[in-house]
Parts: sequence; C-alpha cells; structure tokens
Amino acid sequence: MDIGFIGLGSMGQAMALNALKAGHTVRVWNRSRDATKQLAEQGATVVDTAAEAFVGEAVFSMLADDAALRAVLIDGGVLQQAQKGVIHVNMATISIALCDELVALHQQHGVAYVAAPVLGRPDVAAAAKLNIVAAGDDEAINRVQPVFDAIGQKTWRVGSKPQHANVFKLAANFMLAAAIETTSEAASLMSGYDIDPHAFLDVITNTLFPGPVYQGYGRMIADHRYEPALFKAKLGLKDVRLALAAAETVNVALPVASVVRDNLIEVLAHGDGDKDFAVLGRVAARRAGRAV
Amino acid sequence: MDIGFIGLGSMGQAMALNALKAGHTVRVWNRSRDATKQLAEQGATVVDTAAEAFVGEAVFSMLADDAALRAVLIDGGVLQQAQKGVIHVNMATISIALCDELVALHQQHGVAYVAAPVLGRPDVAAAAKLNIVAAGDDEAINRVQPVFDAIGQKTWRVGSKPQHANVFKLAANFMLAAAIETTSEAASLMSGYDIDPHAFLDVITNTLFPGPVYQGYGRMIADHRYEPALFKAKLGLKDVRLALAAAETVNVALPVASVVRDNLIEVLAHGDGDKDFAVLGRVAARRAGRAV
Amino acid sequence: MDIGFIGLGSMGQAMALNALKAGHTVRVWNRSRDATKQLAEQGATVVDTAAEAFVGEAVFSMLADDAALRAVLIDGGVLQQAQKGVIHVNMATISIALCDELVALHQQHGVAYVAAPVLGRPDVAAAAKLNIVAAGDDEAINRVQPVFDAIGQKTWRVGSKPQHANVFKLAANFMLAAAIETTSEAASLMSGYDIDPHAFLDVITNTLFPGPVYQGYGRMIADHRYEPALFKAKLGLKDVRLALAAAETVNVALPVASVVRDNLIEVLAHGDGDKDFAVLGRVAARRAGRAV
Amino acid sequence: MDIGFIGLGSMGQAMALNALKAGHTVRVWNRSRDATKQLAEQGATVVDTAAEAFVGEAVFSMLADDAALRAVLIDGGVLQQAQKGVIHVNMATISIALCDELVALHQQHGVAYVAAPVLGRPDVAAAAKLNIVAAGDDEAINRVQPVFDAIGQKTWRVGSKPQHANVFKLAANFMLAAAIETTSEAASLMSGYDIDPHAFLDVITNTLFPGPVYQGYGRMIADHRYEPALFKAKLGLKDVRLALAAAETVNVALPVASVVRDNLIEVLAHGDGDKDFAVLGRVAARRAGRAV
Repeated sequence: MDIGFIGLGSMGQAMALNALKAGHTVRVWNRSRDATKQLAEQGATVVDTAAEAFVGEAVFSMLADDAALRAVLIDGGVLQQAQKGVIHVNMATISIALCDELVALHQQHGVAYVAAPVLGRPDVAAAAKLNIVAAGDDEAINRVQPVFDAIGQKTWRVGSKPQHANVFKLAANFMLAAAIETTSEAASLMSGYDIDPHAFLDVITNTLFPGPVYQGYGRMIADHRYEPALFKAKLGLKDVRLALAAAETVNVALPVASVVRDNLIEVLAHGDGDKDFAVLGRVAARRAGRAV
Repeated sequence: MDIGFIGLGSMGQAMALNALKAGHTVRVWNRSRDATKQLAEQGATVVDTAAEAFVGEAVFSMLADDAALRAVLIDGGVLQQAQKGVIHVNMATISIALCDELVALHQQHGVAYVAAPVLGRPDVAAAAKLNIVAAGDDEAINRVQPVFDAIGQKTWRVGSKPQHANVFKLAANFMLAAAIETTSEAASLMSGYDIDPHAFLDVITNTLFPGPVYQGYGRMIADHRYEPALFKAKLGLKDVRLALAAAETVNVALPVASVVRDNLIEVLAHGDGDKDFAVLGRVAARRAGRAV
Repeated sequence: MDIGFIGLGSMGQAMALNALKAGHTVRVWNRSRDATKQLAEQGATVVDTAAEAFVGEAVFSMLADDAALRAVLIDGGVLQQAQKGVIHVNMATISIALCDELVALHQQHGVAYVAAPVLGRPDVAAAAKLNIVAAGDDEAINRVQPVFDAIGQKTWRVGSKPQHANVFKLAANFMLAAAIETTSEAASLMSGYDIDPHAFLDVITNTLFPGPVYQGYGRMIADHRYEPALFKAKLGLKDVRLALAAAETVNVALPVASVVRDNLIEVLAHGDGDKDFAVLGRVAARRAGRAV
Repeated sequence: MDIGFIGLGSMGQAMALNALKAGHTVRVWNRSRDATKQLAEQGATVVDTAAEAFVGEAVFSMLADDAALRAVLIDGGVLQQAQKGVIHVNMATISIALCDELVALHQQHGVAYVAAPVLGRPDVAAAAKLNIVAAGDDEAINRVQPVFDAIGQKTWRVGSKPQHANVFKLAANFMLAAAIETTSEAASLMSGYDIDPHAFLDVITNTLFPGPVYQGYGRMIADHRYEPALFKAKLGLKDVRLALAAAETVNVALPVASVVRDNLIEVLAHGDGDKDFAVLGRVAARRAGRAV
C-alpha cells in the first residue's frame, strides 16, 4: 500500500518500520525531524508537513495525546487539506470526546476515519506483535488490513463506531492499571510479613494470574526496579484519567480507577512520573513506611 | 497414610474423597453427619467426635471459618485430647491472628501444625487439581506430602512459619476480589456505551489477561449470571475482611480491598450474599442505573 | 457605581437586584432575555449584547460554567471589544485553568480582572448575605468594594492572584460535598440500626458540628427530601470535578473527593442530577438496600 | 450519690473528680494504682479490686477499649460478684458487638446497664462540659442523672436500647474523622498553590463550618503541629474501625470511613500513632510530596 505515517515516537517508529519492511510505501512526518532518520535510511520518504502525509491510500497516526492530535489535525488545518478519499487510521489512545469530534470532522472533509488503538508497548511494537483494536467502516478497515497485518499479530474488529475501539483501549488500560495497583498492594502486604514478594508472585502467576501483566509488572514491583520505563507512569495516569472521563460521560463510576488515579498523582508528586507504571509499587511501600 | 479429616463441606468432601481414592485410610468427622455418607460408602470410617479423628499420622481440617475452628479445636477441647505427635494440617482460610494462636496452642499440646490453605473452588477440588500453599515444619510437610499429592496438582512450600501460608492465601483472594471488581467496572463501562461486554472480554482474556479468573468470572459478569455460586460472595467478603485485618496488623493499607469490601457489603444489603462472587458485576450495574 | 452585570441565573439576578437597590446604575445582559425582566422593572438598563455591558466602571459576571464564560468572553469576542480600563469581576465558580487563561487575556486587552466567587445559595444571595472571596489587584478590588458591600455580608480578600480565590471556592465546595456525603453515610448507619437520623443530627449539630451545612443538608437527608434543589447535585459534581482537576494540576490527591465524585455519578445515573446536593443521602440509602 | 468509678485514664480521672467535687461519694479503682492518687487526696476511697467498686447505687466505667472491659468485667468475674441492683454506666466507646453481649450478661447478673459514651476530649472533661449520649432503662438513667449533671453540660437521651448510644458515638467519631481528613486534603490543596492554609481556614470556619472541630483540628493541621495529642491517632483509628464494623453488621458501607482508615494506617506505619488525630494532615502532605 501507499501510506503516510505521522507521529514517530517509540511506538510510531516501530510500527512504521514494520510497514516498510513488509513492502509498503511509506511517507513519514514527525514534529521533530530527528525521529525520521532511521526510517529514511530504510526507504521511507520524509515529508515536511503533516498535510503532505495525508495523501495516497491511507495515513496512519500515532500522536502523543489529544492536544498533539488537535494541534496537527484541527488547528493545523491538515484535515481541510487532506486528499478526499484517503483513509485516516488513528492508532493513538485518545479521549472519547475527541474521537467523536474527529468522526464528525472527517466526515465533513471526506476522509474515512478508523480508530485502531493498540495493545502493547514499544518492545511488542518492534516485534510486530501488537494487538490492534479496530473500529470504523468495515470496507475501510478491509483496505488497511495489510498494514495491520504487518505491524500486529491480530486485529480485533469491534464494530463500526470508531468510539468503540477507544472505549476498549481505555478499559483495557484501566484494567492494566488496576492489576498493577493490586499487585503493589499485595507485595506490600508480603513485605509487612517479611515474605519475599517474588515467592508470592511465583505462586500467583502460575495459578490464578498467568500472563504478561502480573508477571512483567509483578517482577518490577518485587525487584523495586522502575527503570527503564516501558510504559511511563505519567502516561498511565493520562489513560486512567481518560477512562474516568469516558465512564463519567455515560454516568458510570469506576471506583478502582479513582483509587489508582489518586496513587498515580502521588507518583507524580514524588517526581516519579517518568518511571515505569510499576512504580505504583513504590507508593504502596512508601505508604506502609518502608524505605523505597 | 492413616489420617483423619474433619470439616466436610463441598471442599472438604472432595478432598477427603481423593485421599481415599489414592489408598489412604481416612477417618472422617463432620458436625452434621449427613456429609459423611458418601465418604462412608467409599470406605471412610466415620467417627463420632472430632477428637477421635485426631489420631494416626495426621489429621486434615477444612472447617468453615475462624469461629468453627475455635469452637471445635479450642472450646471443644479437641487439641487437649489429641494424640501427641499427630500432625494437624489446617487447609482452611483463617485469620492470621487465629493462625498465630493455633501455632502456640499446638506446640503446647505436642501437635505439629501445618497451614496449607488451597487455591481452587469445589470443582477444582473434585478434580484433585488444587494448588496447595503449605507452610510449617519441613519434616511434617514431607510426611503429609503423599496426601497433598492425592488432592492437589502442586504443593507450594512457602516457609516454616505457618502464618505465611495464610498470608499468601489471603493476598491471593484479595487479588481475586480485585480482579472481579475491576472486570465488573469495565463491563459496566462497556454497557454504558452499548458495547457487549463479551466482545471486550474476548479481547482482554486473549491478550493482557489470560487465565481462569478473568475468563471465568468475566463470563458470569457478562452473562449477568450469578448462580450457581462456586464461591459465594459472602465468603468472598469474609476473605477480604481477613486480608484487610492481616494488612492492618502490619500497618499496610489495601485501598483497593477497601473499595471491594464496600461493594461486597452492598451485595449483602441487597440479599445477594449467597450468589457467586461475580455478583459484584450487579453492584456496578446497579450503581450505573441499569436494571440488573 | 456605573456597572454592567452579565449572567442572570437565580444567583446573578439576586445579586444584580441588590446592587440596584443599593443605588448603583446597572446595565444587564443575559443570553435569554426573560431573565432581565424583573431587573428592568427595578430600573436596570437591558442591553442587547454582552459587549455593551463591558463599559462603565466595572462589569460583574455570573455565567454558568467554563463553557458559557468561554463562549461569551473569548469566542464571542467580548474581551476584544471591552472598554479599556473597565474592571471585570468574575463571580462564578470556574476552573483554575480557565482563570489563568482569563488573567492573561484580560491583561492583553487592558481589562482588570478580579476573581470573586461567592459562598452561598440563591436564598443567601437574595438576602445580600453572601460571603465574597476576592482576589486580584488590590486597587481594583477597592473600587468595586461598594458593590460587594451591596450584595454580600463580607468580602474575604485572599491575595493578588485571581487564581487563589477560585482555589478557595473549589476547596470550600469540596468540603461541602464531603460533609454532605459523610452525613449521608452516618444517616444510613442510623437507619441500619432503626434509629431516627433526626435524633442523631440533633446531637451532632448541637455539639461537634454546628452551622448551616450539617443542619441544612442534614435535615434534607433525614427527611429524604431532595426538592426543591437549592444547589443541584449536577452542579455539585461539576464543582467536585473542578476541585479534583485543580488538585491534580499541583499533584495533590483528594481521596475523599474521589469517593464523592463516584457517588455523584451514581446520582446522575439514577436521574437525580437536578435534585439537591443532599441527594447523596439517597445513594447511601440505595447502596444499603433501603427503599428510597 | 454513692458511686464507684473504674478506669482512670485522663478522661476517667477528670470525670470522677468532677463527681467528687459535686459532693458525690466516690469509690475508685484503676489497674495501675498511680492514677488514683489525686482522687484520693480529693476524698475518694480507693478500693483494691474492680469488684469492690460494683456496690452502692451505681458504678461508672471508663476503660480503654473492648479488651480492657472484657478483661475486667467478664474474664475478671466482676459482673458475677456485682451487688444486685447496682447500675453500671459504661461511658467508654466500645463495639456494638460487645455492647450487646454486655446487655445480656448484665441482665443475667441482675445489674442494670446504661451506655453513656461522651463527646469531648480530656480538656472538656476537666471543665465538666462533656456531652453525654445515654441509652438504656429510663428509670436507671433518671437515677444517675445527678452524676451526669456533675460531669457533663448536657445529657442526650437517645432511647432505651444501650446499643443506640454506642452507634451515636461511633457515628460521631466517624464524622469527626471525616472532617479532619477533609480539612487535611483541603489544606494540602492550598499548599499546592502556595496559599497559607490558615487564610483558607479563617474563611471556612467563619462561614460554612463554624464550631470546634474545623477550628481546632484545622489550626493544628495548618500549623503542622501534632503534639500534644488531645485525641491520639491510634485511638481515632480504633474508633473508625469500630464504626466500620458496626456499619458492616447492618450491611451499610461507609466509603469515606474506608478512606480515612487507610490513611490512619499510614499514620501508624510512620510511627505517628501517638500524635494527635490531626496528624492526618501529615499524611496528605506526605502523599503530595511535601516535607512534613
């Protein structure tokens, strides 16, 4: 396919690279040009403006947050200039409110809109093993499926309403946050009884809770090792905040998310926002009076 | 081995039966004699008092809660009459405070004490697939290992201090409760957006959260089906309460457990205490104003 | 003084009326003209646009929320057209973020900005008994003090940074929300023991907690009477949300506010958003399984 | 009257002293005899056993907690030996469960039981300004009213069921705890914006929240001064725990109490249990990353 890709953070770069490797033609743009270097070496065409990427069959975006997306697409006028008929696949985790606004704007400007947030961190993106949660016009998704196949291990189609993919993603990240918090509290309980949390995690992850989350974050918590950050705590807080907002919009309370949010604020207050999401373990330890 | 088994609820019966099937000689006692019938048919000897079960090489107990255990062992004078040298293996989920009290009393009466709570519900017990978390004197555990092998799929030895096995069990059940609550909240969020929770669970249990907890309880929540109860909500509340007490003893707060506790109280207030633990899904739905 | 007044809800009307009665010249504007009728009868000049109110010595605004203020002042271009040197006194409860944005915009357009949110509901406003929390340039506050004296019983000057007055107001409303929630929970506990909550409130408000909040809201909760709404629950939720956002900006968690927010969302989910803030009492009762 | 008084901590001593001063004949007992010295000098008769105090018209008790009361009255056999017809007035804050147990035991032993917990700290007790919340047999309360008049400013009769007085007291202390926590959070928000919390408290306690609680605890929080402890945090935690247990018994959740409990556990984890209840302010400050 002939595609554009804008937003080349660690996730975006890995995804664009996998698209390139699979033989797609890729036009790339990023606010800071440095991030385009490796892609250019691999054969990507670097364009000077985001608008220049909105041509061809489809353009994929992986911008940092609502503000970045709004700055580029709406305030930056990119949507107005976009080639009619191009498909925009937004793979970032954004608010439901912005998603709905984008759906209306895209329709107005004749651009198809597919929401396709992903489950997985940069290492998973690099391995082309992402899980892609896609929602939007079925025909549009069919057309971009070859690119999804190049960057993910599976595409989960969750309906025709783009909003739904974002709700899935926010709920998934809320559940992730809750699992990390719960593991942190359990580990703190172990420490209170002078039990090595690793021993507890060994039992738990081989019985009730197999899988990458409890194992991976559990080990970081038990090790008191919060760097390198694969998923920064401050971005985790952003996602929990978006999940709370999405839920509030439909009059749903998420009491566990409220607890996690409060503890993530404590993370930021202690200067640990750039540490890994697992640093919730440090909050639990601090609150229990243990050196951390 | 020549063993006793007291406390024949659905868990205890299944466990005693598997010990019998493996060729062990089993003396059984239960407060209500009905529960001994099937075991007698399979070759168990039914005794009239709990004290008569406290002879032979070891006696296993699976009584309902702290109060039942206290009534039988302490107030009932069983420990005083127990054969010196017998090993008592307590497989029930009890408070840390009672565990510590029992350790002292057993020592005083010359009875070895092993704490060996199990992970798994009655169906798992019937299949002899329990995970046994054992702590206590190593030699005593070695001696009863053949019975553990008959009733469980794996024994996790977590130290010489019986207390530790109970801390593991309470922490595991706290994490279970938190996972059910989190899934309930996420399912409620889905319903708020008119998304079928089954679709969301399909993604989540095939990506971030594989394993029996999110799958099994998740399905019950998505189905709004809370019967039959494999793990009753009121027993779940009991365990969360014990986890909170265990944590408070060592000055550890478990904020997520506090949230779950409050919601489980709502379960009881609405007469759903005998429903399955998954009925937390109903609380989330009720709070969001949906018919449940 | 020669003043304008925009935003004539029940609070704004009462305040503008008291300014009129005290002899000030008042130009009034409201989006829906109906609200200006009574004021016109009392001698106010009704103007057609908000911009026309931004002349004279000062203009007071009491618009509903951030969105309304943004629509009129910023998007509506009123600030650009405002007479240089006029003092804008914003008496509404708004977000800290918008306050900061307004400070910068006012400076740019040569309009003095005073933040002066008020404590008190419409009945208090009508009685000219409001407490006014004012922050901004001291000289500007001095000049508008005569109007404050006409509409309030006391002006609390809390510094030169307008932001500070809004932080005070949001913290006050958070404390109000917490007191209502706490009273609701205590009343629910009383009902659980078949004790009349009125008896409990009688003791508590004559000992530990005198004053209007526990007495007034307490009586509504004990009476299960949530109408007429003097302070609507949905506006209470708005303020709690603003308090949480203000706190998050400076990395402060407000765990009690999180709890109240979750319960207020339940209020809205059950269609009670237009009931009085005291309707938190209904949430506590519902969760405890009592007909409400 | 001819009375006994057992349990002479700082509260008990002050109360017994005021009874003496009012002309009553007082027999006193305390586990540690030191505490009886000042009372003896003022004319009290010191007895060697608690049982010797259970004679005359009435005996008042102010023991530390459930355990102390159980040790003396039940395990110590005092109730069995008590003079028939004596009235026992228990002024301590105890659990509802123990209260109910005591009601039954007193009836069995022919001793009238009045529950009469008090609102007020040692300074208030010394000034004979306590508020007494009394429940039990009306005639029995009538007979001890002269002593109540000597030690309190007002007696609130809340029914014939002793339990009810304890529910009132626990609910009152829960509301106290919630107010301290809320004030702590608000003060932390102020600090986050570099606002002196004293200024905020000045406004709040002169408008929405007059009265001793917000003023007294508020000042300690704003001063970061948590000693001397008029009401120790660890005793506050005890009361919150009793309130939660009382509520759970009747299937009522107290979500705000859960939050306060978690923060009080943090107080103990940091070695501040003997500081004043206001030390919740330190928890809020610590969580927000400020030196405390």
